[in-house]
Parts: sequence; structure tokens; C-alpha cells
Amino acid sequence: MDLPSVFTRYRPAITQGLREALTESDLPLYGMQRYHLGWQDEHGKPLEANSGKAVRPALCLFACEAVSGQWRTALPAAIAVELIHNFSLVHDDIQDGDTHRRHRATVWYLWGHSHGVNAGDAMNILGNLAMFGGDGAALPPQTALTASRILTKACADMIEGQVLDLSFEQRAAVRVDDYLVMISKKTGALLAASLHMGAAIGTREERTTAAMLEFGKGLGLLFQVRDDMLGVWGKSEVTGKSASNDIHRRKKSLPVVHALEHAKGPSRDRLQTIYKSDTQLTDADVADVLTIFTEVGSARYCEELAQQTASASLRHIETIEIAPQAKRECAKMTRFLLEREY
Amino acid sequence: MDLPSVFTRYRPAITQGLREALTESDLPLYGMQRYHLGWQDEHGKPLEANSGKAVRPALCLFACEAVSGQWRTALPAAIAVELIHNFSLVHDDIQDGDTHRRHRATVWYLWGHSHGVNAGDAMNILGNLAMFGGDGAALPPQTALTASRILTKACADMIEGQVLDLSFEQRAAVRVDDYLVMISKKTGALLAASLHMGAAIGTREERTTAAMLEFGKGLGLLFQVRDDMLGVWGKSEVTGKSASNDIHRRKKSLPVVHALEHAKGPSRDRLQTIYKSDTQLTDADVADVLTIFTEVGSARYCEELAQQTASASLRHIETIEIAPQAKRECAKMTRFLLEREY
Repeated sequence: MDLPSVFTRYRPAITQGLREALTESDLPLYGMQRYHLGWQDEHGKPLEANSGKAVRPALCLFACEAVSGQWRTALPAAIAVELIHNFSLVHDDIQDGDTHRRHRATVWYLWGHSHGVNAGDAMNILGNLAMFGGDGAALPPQTALTASRILTKACADMIEGQVLDLSFEQRAAVRVDDYLVMISKKTGALLAASLHMGAAIGTREERTTAAMLEFGKGLGLLFQVRDDMLGVWGKSEVTGKSASNDIHRRKKSLPVVHALEHAKGPSRDRLQTIYKSDTQLTDADVADVLTIFTEVGSARYCEELAQQTASASLRHIETIEIAPQAKRECAKMTRFLLEREY
Repeated sequence: MDLPSVFTRYRPAITQGLREALTESDLPLYGMQRYHLGWQDEHGKPLEANSGKAVRPALCLFACEAVSGQWRTALPAAIAVELIHNFSLVHDDIQDGDTHRRHRATVWYLWGHSHGVNAGDAMNILGNLAMFGGDGAALPPQTALTASRILTKACADMIEGQVLDLSFEQRAAVRVDDYLVMISKKTGALLAASLHMGAAIGTREERTTAAMLEFGKGLGLLFQVRDDMLGVWGKSEVTGKSASNDIHRRKKSLPVVHALEHAKGPSRDRLQTIYKSDTQLTDADVADVLTIFTEVGSARYCEELAQQTASASLRHIETIEIAPQAKRECAKMTRFLLEREY
């Protein structure tokens, strides 16, 4: 399936905005951030430009355009949310001890924990500066404040989600409901804020911006649920990750959270034993986990939750007065997030 | 010598503002922050209120009052800068591996690195929310943006200073000039921003706000130079720290940076050997360091730099039109920072 144009058409403006936001200072602090964004290698040598998928800024600009705003006016917010998303990745990598991200060594792994913390902090701050620090095409003060408030509150939710996630990894059992609250914060908050900010910059119609926020919450949930499904059942030749990757990593993602809550008797015991142990999983272990997922219907549960979330999200859009073309794009994006294989 | 009333008279309002900013949420994320601020012990049991010296918010409120503003209008900025200062302390403790601060275990030492990073991140975010997130006595939009911009730029400088500081600790020799740039960022930026914001909230007179900024830069430098002097020559019964504390810790503070640059021959060799080694210093080592400081005039250099900085700072204040009483208070504060023994 084709990537909806929403995710590609703003890319040149986003890339340019990010480059402007990241001062050309030769301090190592900024070099680490350019490395993280894929613009240079660890020695500072420029790389073929690759700023990742940049989903959040695209959603922000789209939302502004969808409510009949000039999408370029939302650029400060779009750049801010992308920098803040990346700040959270740099700190998450430290907290999860991940040595690699997208097949590249992580910042802390190359420069150590202290500089990893600093690089993340600086990226967070540059995100805030991008919103209201620019002297050029800055937002009107009231609008900048509204957008900052949305983004900063979402940031607080994101950190709360990260704390919950860390605590879940240490717990034997996590309830599905608690898991959904966690991902709605950790992943959903910034995604929802992206659409919410874009809409709030494009219009003062409160019913419209509120609907975009709700639509965004749905997309955030959908995005993570699908991510969790791909981590277990994704085709490795498409995802670029090994098969059953999240099982091998014992990641407490939705399928296993669901299975741990619903498995009974020997299946439950087996699942618990596998997820409590800390030795490397054998192929037989992974096969057993997949069998138990089938037994308790974890794949079907995830699939249905994704479907319902997609439908519920779109209902928020159907009731507001935006251009039919924008509504069609909302539907396309939703279907893409529901069906994506990578 | 008495603490100037600037540092005490706003305390009730600052304490109340901080408590309002730190949501009463029972999530552990907020508990860690309340612990760091000294409001509760590690189990969540409330402690006798003690929010530290809160120098920065006091300077912010004072500056607003000094330029004939209503000091209460600057409270959002004052609370923001105090939270952001504390965010930086939480992350600094991780980076420096400090297990204790003000005789209490540090956040990361109690809850681990991951949660330490989260607690700091959340405090940074709450700082931003305090500035423009409140729905009550919020600043007018343009003023909030101006203050946010000042604070966020200072934050970026502060992180740059922290990076420089970490890099200095790994270097054999640091030049005095480089050291002064580092402390003007790491310590000076937020102190200067505090006065700058307060003034910008109280008046639109650009010459006045610019003078307050320059005054603040001087105070920041003065504050750190005096801190460095007390770390070497402070009286332990007054500072509450052991004698020659910074020598024992091999801290690359101003006296040793100066001595390393100016010592010659055997003194230089001895100093370098002591600061390169990583075994615990003996009393004889410390005595040697102190002797070399005397030889090269490091104490006199620090004293003169502090004096000159104090005079230069005050000259910025003398030229602007603010109430004579406010000017007298600036002089009192400056003298206090110059002469303080703790």
C-alpha cells in the first residue's frame, strides 16, 4: 500500500525547519543531536539527509491545512514537536539501555550516559525555542502560547507514560487497561498534540480543534497497537527486524499483556515462566508463546481493538465542518496506520 | 553579616507557587520531585518545609519590583526558573555521580538513573508549564513569550556550560578564560535570566532591562567565583562542608585552574601529578596544593576578580533610572555575594 501523501508532502519544509532550529554551532552538544537525527556520522561527517519518518510534524501541518489554515504557519509547532519527540528517544535509549536504534549506535552508547542526558536536554530546549524563539515567521503571541501549552502538557503526559512503562517492565503482571493508559500517554500524547496544535493554529473553532485532538488520540493508540502487532507477527523482510522480535526481547507489549491476563492453567504458567526468566529464549520458547497467543486469541483481540479505534477516531472527524478532501485524507491515514506492514 | 531581605521576603509566595506548580498527583514521578525539593522523605512522608535558598526566584521578583513593576506579576517566571534550576541539579547529580546533595541522598541514588532522568525531565516541563500553563494569574501573552524566550535561551546556555564542565573534568589543563566562559553559562545564565525576566515583566524600558541583564551576568559570575573560593578556603564550621573540600574532590574550580596555568617548575609538576592521580589525597597533598596556591597568588587573583566583577556589575545599575532604594538593595546583594562565608 502507498504511503499517504500527508506523510511525504511537507518533508522539504520540515527538513529545512529542523536544520534551522539546530544551530550550526560546532559544540559537541549539537553534533550529538545532528548525529541522532541521522545527518552526520559520529565523527561529524555529513550523511545523506535522513530525518526519519517525521510523522508528528506532518500530522501537525496536515491538521492546520485541514481546518483551512495556511500549513506553513504551523511550522514552528511542527519543528518543536519533532525535536521534543527526538529528545524523548535519546533519553528512552538511556533508560532502556538500548545500544542501537534504526541500525545505528545510540547517542549514549557512543558518548556515554552523561552526554546522552545533555543531548536530550538540549533537544528538548531547542524544541521550545523552535516554537517561540524564532524571530522570523513566528506565531502570533496568543497562538504560540496556546500551542506551547498543548505541547508542554503532552510532554508531561509522555514522561508519565515513560515512568509507567519502566514500572511495567519490572512487574510480573500488567492489566490490559493499565497498558492502554500507558501507551496513550507515552506514544499517544505527542501524536495527539501534533494534530491538536496544527488545528489550533489553523482555526479558533473550538469544536473543530477538540475533534482533531480526539482524532489524534485515536491515531496515537492505533499507531502503537499496530506497532505492537508488527513486533510479534510482522514479516521480517518488510519490518527490517527479526521475526517475533518483541518476544525475543520479552517486551511487555499488548499481545503478551493480553495473553498474561487471559491465559489459564498450564498455558498461563508456561507464559509466566518464560517472561520471568532472564536466559535467552529458545526457538521452542518463542513457538510456545505464539501458540498461547493463538489459544487465547491475542492476535484477534489486537486486530479488533485496532479496527474499533480506527472507526472511533474517524467518527470525530465526520461530524466537523472541514473540506471533504481533508476528511478523505483522514480516512486514508487511518487506514494506512491500521494496515501498515512496517 | 545579615542575609539581605531580598533573599527572604518573597519566600512565602515562592513556596506557595512551587507547591501549586508541583501537582499533587500521587504518581512516583511527582513524589521524586517533592523529595528533591526537600518537602518529603523517600517514603513520601512530609518533612518540615525547606525549599532551599531559592536565590533565582527571589532575584526575579526583586528585579520586577526594582523597575517599579508589581512583583507578584513575575511569579510565573520566578517559579519557572526555580523548577528549571532544580531540573538541572537532578540531571547534574546523575552526570557527576554525586550520591548526596545537601546531606540527603540524590534522586538517582535512591531511584536509579532512569527515574532520575525522568524526574529531571518532568521538572523541566513543569517549569515551562509554570510560566504559561497556569489559568489563573497568568502573564499577558506577549510578556509570557518574552520571558519564556529569555529563560529557554538561558537554559540552552546552561546545558552548554554543563557540557563544557564535563569536558574540563577530563582534560589535564583548562585555561582560566575558558573556565570563566563555562561558569558564566553553567551558573551565570539562569541567574542573569532571573533578573532579566523580572525586569522585562516589570517594564518595557529596554535600557533598564538590558542593564538588569548585565547586572545579573555579573552576579552570576560573582556567585560562582565566591563559591569556588569557599570550596577551598571556606571555614568548615560555617560552610557545613569539610575544609578544603574541593581540593579533596579534585574539583577543577577557579583556584586550581588559575594555579595550573601559572605555576612553574616543580610546583607545576607537583600540582599536575596530584590532579592526575586518582588515589585519595593525603593531608600532605592538600597542604602542598594550598602552598602552591599561595605561591602563585591564586587566592589574591580570585579575590580581585570577585571585587572587579562586583564593581562592574553595580556600574550597570548606577546608570539606569530606578528607585534609590532599589539601587541600594542591588549594592547590598552584591556585597553579600562578595563577602558571604557560606
